[in-house]
Amino acid sequence: MTTAVSTQIQLASRPSGWPTAENFRTVQVTYGDLAPGEVRVATEFMSVDPYMRGRMNDVKSYTPPFALDETMTGGAIGRVVESNVDEVPVGALVQHQLGWRDIVQADAAQFRVVPEIPGVSTSVYLGMLGMTGLTAYVGLTAIAQMREGDTVFISGAAGAVGTAAGQIARLLGAKRVIGSAGSAEKVALLTERYGYDVAFNYKDGDIRGQLAAATPEGIDVYFDNVGGEHLEAAIGALNHGGRVAVCGAISAYNATEPVPGPRNMGNIITRSLTLKGFTLGGYLHLAGEFQQHMTEWFGAGKIAHDETVVEGIDHAVDAFLGLLRGENVGKMVVKI
Amino acid sequence: MTTAVSTQIQLASRPSGWPTAENFRTVQVTYGDLAPGEVRVATEFMSVDPYMRGRMNDVKSYTPPFALDETMTGGAIGRVVESNVDEVPVGALVQHQLGWRDIVQADAAQFRVVPEIPGVSTSVYLGMLGMTGLTAYVGLTAIAQMREGDTVFISGAAGAVGTAAGQIARLLGAKRVIGSAGSAEKVALLTERYGYDVAFNYKDGDIRGQLAAATPEGIDVYFDNVGGEHLEAAIGALNHGGRVAVCGAISAYNATEPVPGPRNMGNIITRSLTLKGFTLGGYLHLAGEFQQHMTEWFGAGKIAHDETVVEGIDHAVDAFLGLLRGENVGKMVVKI
Repeated sequence: MTTAVSTQIQLASRPSGWPTAENFRTVQVTYGDLAPGEVRVATEFMSVDPYMRGRMNDVKSYTPPFALDETMTGGAIGRVVESNVDEVPVGALVQHQLGWRDIVQADAAQFRVVPEIPGVSTSVYLGMLGMTGLTAYVGLTAIAQMREGDTVFISGAAGAVGTAAGQIARLLGAKRVIGSAGSAEKVALLTERYGYDVAFNYKDGDIRGQLAAATPEGIDVYFDNVGGEHLEAAIGALNHGGRVAVCGAISAYNATEPVPGPRNMGNIITRSLTLKGFTLGGYLHLAGEFQQHMTEWFGAGKIAHDETVVEGIDHAVDAFLGLLRGENVGKMVVKI
Repeated sequence: MTTAVSTQIQLASRPSGWPTAENFRTVQVTYGDLAPGEVRVATEFMSVDPYMRGRMNDVKSYTPPFALDETMTGGAIGRVVESNVDEVPVGALVQHQLGWRDIVQADAAQFRVVPEIPGVSTSVYLGMLGMTGLTAYVGLTAIAQMREGDTVFISGAAGAVGTAAGQIARLLGAKRVIGSAGSAEKVALLTERYGYDVAFNYKDGDIRGQLAAATPEGIDVYFDNVGGEHLEAAIGALNHGGRVAVCGAISAYNATEPVPGPRNMGNIITRSLTLKGFTLGGYLHLAGEFQQHMTEWFGAGKIAHDETVVEGIDHAVDAFLGLLRGENVGKMVVKI
């Protein structure tokens, strides 16, 4: 048994609009000897995710806001380095929600032991095999009720959820998968690597026109990671009975004024559309079904899985700010 | 066999914004002798409905636009006065979609014979026992998935669908029913006659504040007949897992500019909301179930059923324009 010094990132102040490095603070926390029932884990990778921007605000939501002057939390994967609990032994790979720190010590119940996958980085548990992949799967299946033969549009398509959703849509039998992203490089990757049939750069403007050109026959399903103009364009392109899985609204997360809503809400009636918002909390019962599918697809080499890896806990804030600016392709993780 | 002169209302021009009497034209049409398979019907009541405003525009929608210089169509109930078809005999009460005329002659397949209800005006087939009641029932059940104990908010609550929806929500076990309408008189009727627990006048402004005051515990279901600010206020008041039946958007029907959308679409994600639009076409299979419920409720005296009756085909246009201005309580019909 030993003590351990842990480097941790705290929320120092709440941003108005875009967050900056000044909103965060790095501290050293010394953990004492392990208490009964506790384990100590060395983080291998921690996740930065768009939803964390919402937790920086002091607003009641589905996840509580980050507390000021306390270490933030989030998905992470690590290795047990000390243990008082037989079921979570030293050397075990564990997934947990106590990210934003390089070493974490807590009750063993906070950690879930997961199997090693030979030849694959453990960070896959934060991405394609973790919450990210599950989010894409739940959005397409339980929320948007995607059917074989549907034309599917996905915004934020080069992001973590988007690269998963495009490939899952194809594997589930979509007729045509259309994606939008924020750079020419990302747009090229969408069609060359992530199974999209057509893609466009929303920063070129006229999202509605670009979407119409990409799919003259309209769309049946829209997986929304972006909100704002993208959602309005999708509501304009949806066919009768179309469905929207409203998963994210990154275009609005740093807004300081209320973001205008879609000006074509009337289509919801005349085309019998359904917009359904979701967060994973209500759909964790689908994790088993998802794991089964994804493990099979992954093992068969049918899933391209990329990450943007930032090295070091000292660059975790940079990684998060870069994510909000769209500097990632695929899942953004911090390697500790 | 005789000929017959029918007075009919045609669409003379398409309005931009609010329609006026100049957009309509009254013509006399002479029907010849009945052809084989035809019947002649004297209209007793014709329906005017908000959705008809949409049909005045030259826009592809779930119902085709009214053709220029042709007689308009819509729900009506009438009595067979001549017949070549045994199944639709003289004297039979028939429901049909060839409104906007005092006499109609067409193939018998266009008419559906319905039973007389002793002591009740035949106009009830255009309202509580017809498409209006069915719309309210479908919206609450199949679309909004209303459950016992839900708190339900209904806009346009003193209108045809609204007076039906409030009462049906109560009969289906709503915990609390809240309505909005456009005058103090209507607001009083909502609580005194139509089973609403609380009601407010949206013309007093601050819809969001009035809704919050009416239901500090939020709402679970919103039945939207109005759109615009009402929809934004409802999205602000909906509890986690809340559901919206998007049925109408009368606030937008006469707009000449795109109507701003809700500025709080983010709630759809954080509160896991569902917005589902519908038109009756996809739900006619629920008519049997609805008739069973409504006949029972109606027979047991549990349904207050009011109409705003305008007399004479020559005032049909006035009735329709008055409807768009909200001059009706309950179903607006024209007595021929």
